[in-house]
Amino acid sequence: MQSLSGTRIAVLGAGLIGVSWAALFTHYGADVCVYDPEDAARAALEARSEAPYAHLAELAPDPAPRGRLRVTDDLSHALDGAMLIQENAPENIPQKHALFAQVEALAPPDAIVASSTSALTWSELAPGFKNPRRLITAHPFNPPHLVPLVELYGPDPARLDRAETFYRAAGRVPVRLNTDATGHIANRLASALWREAVHIVAEGIADVDAVDAALVNGPGLRWSVMGAHMAYHLGGGAGGMAGYLTHLGPSQQRRWASLGTPTLTPEVCQALIDGITQEAAAAIFPLWRPPATPPSSPP
Amino acid sequence: MQSLSGTRIAVLGAGLIGVSWAALFTHYGADVCVYDPEDAARAALEARSEAPYAHLAELAPDPAPRGRLRVTDDLSHALDGAMLIQENAPENIPQKHALFAQVEALAPPDAIVASSTSALTWSELAPGFKNPRRLITAHPFNPPHLVPLVELYGPDPARLDRAETFYRAAGRVPVRLNTDATGHIANRLASALWREAVHIVAEGIADVDAVDAALVNGPGLRWSVMGAHMAYHLGGGAGGMAGYLTHLGPSQQRRWASLGTPTLTPEVCQALIDGITQEAAAAIFPLWRPPATPPSSPP
Repeated sequence: MQSLSGTRIAVLGAGLIGVSWAALFTHYGADVCVYDPEDAARAALEARSEAPYAHLAELAPDPAPRGRLRVTDDLSHALDGAMLIQENAPENIPQKHALFAQVEALAPPDAIVASSTSALTWSELAPGFKNPRRLITAHPFNPPHLVPLVELYGPDPARLDRAETFYRAAGRVPVRLNTDATGHIANRLASALWREAVHIVAEGIADVDAVDAALVNGPGLRWSVMGAHMAYHLGGGAGGMAGYLTHLGPSQQRRWASLGTPTLTPEVCQALIDGITQEAAAAIFPLWRPPATPPSSPP
Repeated sequence: MQSLSGTRIAVLGAGLIGVSWAALFTHYGADVCVYDPEDAARAALEARSEAPYAHLAELAPDPAPRGRLRVTDDLSHALDGAMLIQENAPENIPQKHALFAQVEALAPPDAIVASSTSALTWSELAPGFKNPRRLITAHPFNPPHLVPLVELYGPDPARLDRAETFYRAAGRVPVRLNTDATGHIANRLASALWREAVHIVAEGIADVDAVDAALVNGPGLRWSVMGAHMAYHLGGGAGGMAGYLTHLGPSQQRRWASLGTPTLTPEVCQALIDGITQEAAAAIFPLWRPPATPPSSPP
């Protein structure tokens, strides 16, 4: 799949994640129909797409002629001819199951139903289908049009292959799980790191802004180009991971035992709120800003 | 301190970390004398400085005329007139204590003794001094000439202020701890994240290369510009951290309880080694390479 031109995609739900997906897919050439039962969400879609489109124009100029973006309150209309259905309904199992029953009745039989779910797992969602092999989880890291990661899990290798090809053609980096797990991969890692970040504040080792500055100017920089396993492999010198584990495995195991298991007591929560309020007041993020004047229309 | 020109710095130990510090400090204008008792380490200093100097020339062209770089086996010679003494001896408490006793007898009384120690704490090193207020820990994230973070701890606020000003003038981002802790901040965070990364592999949730790809293309990207606390603050929407803790604190606490506590058994170690071998074979890092032709000398 070199381009998404001519590919039909359904996006279910016009919230933050749905809008971001829809802008991404159309930017890469797909024809997208967004379904949302709420009038206000449908009415806001066009305006809320402007920022993602502006980001994409800067980051990935002209990968393909932009696809058609439509919005509807008719589910069958959205699903018509779709090869992939990106579901972004609220994180509520009965609500998702009810939607899946409708989707299964209306969607093309070989369509991939890809759930963006963050908090739920494939195993929790699958009972919403007569044929659960139609379902995969395809969890983006927010916002999907900016962060490349899409975490995939499902029982049907052929559907996963097709989904992977599709997301790659939309400039994403799909990563596969072998079993489903709450938090997939990335949010498990983020949760583990934040637990220790909270512990450091709760124990008075360092302030909230110091913890964030240490991350951003140290391991965060490294992890933007190299994974944690690779960092220890390279840190092991000529012996690599094997050398690291032989020489430093026992001390790493002792370090693990010394990490914290904080509780979000009222006092800990207040320390986090006070600390982040102070950090936010001083923060200057390298946020994208729209150009002062809109680009002139093409000649 | 606008420039380090005229500032005298002693670097103790000409290993990887010492060489990196020495190149950094001289690049920013300081006069550095490196002490190492081993002939081979002293002889290799000049050649081993070439790569750090080349990186620095690219990343921070001409912040100041390069300072003088000398090397000696005479500790008193290295310490003469030094305002800061960056210690990089082996991570061995008796060996560091023995070196500190010599340093305390020879160094200018107001000099800052800054230990690069990674594995040890200020409290473990302080007994090497008659006056332990002379000591701070100043832990870089390897390699010090590339990664901005320097984690500082010590009991004397005036020395910490002077050290902070010095490291800032060398292009670093100093971060202060309120109490000393094994692993300082950054290695505690890295250790917590890697524990979960190992758990994910040990449990068969995902392969080594998938875990690394998820980190690099997801949270790693975010953490190169924004800390973990700030990410949850912004993730809380209009309510910020307070809103996040109210609505999602309990589910985060449940997530924490589900994180793993792996053991580095032979089977787990083998899975890590096999996985990283596969990942490394396919990896292409955006590593810096020297220019094909050396820059011509100035006219």
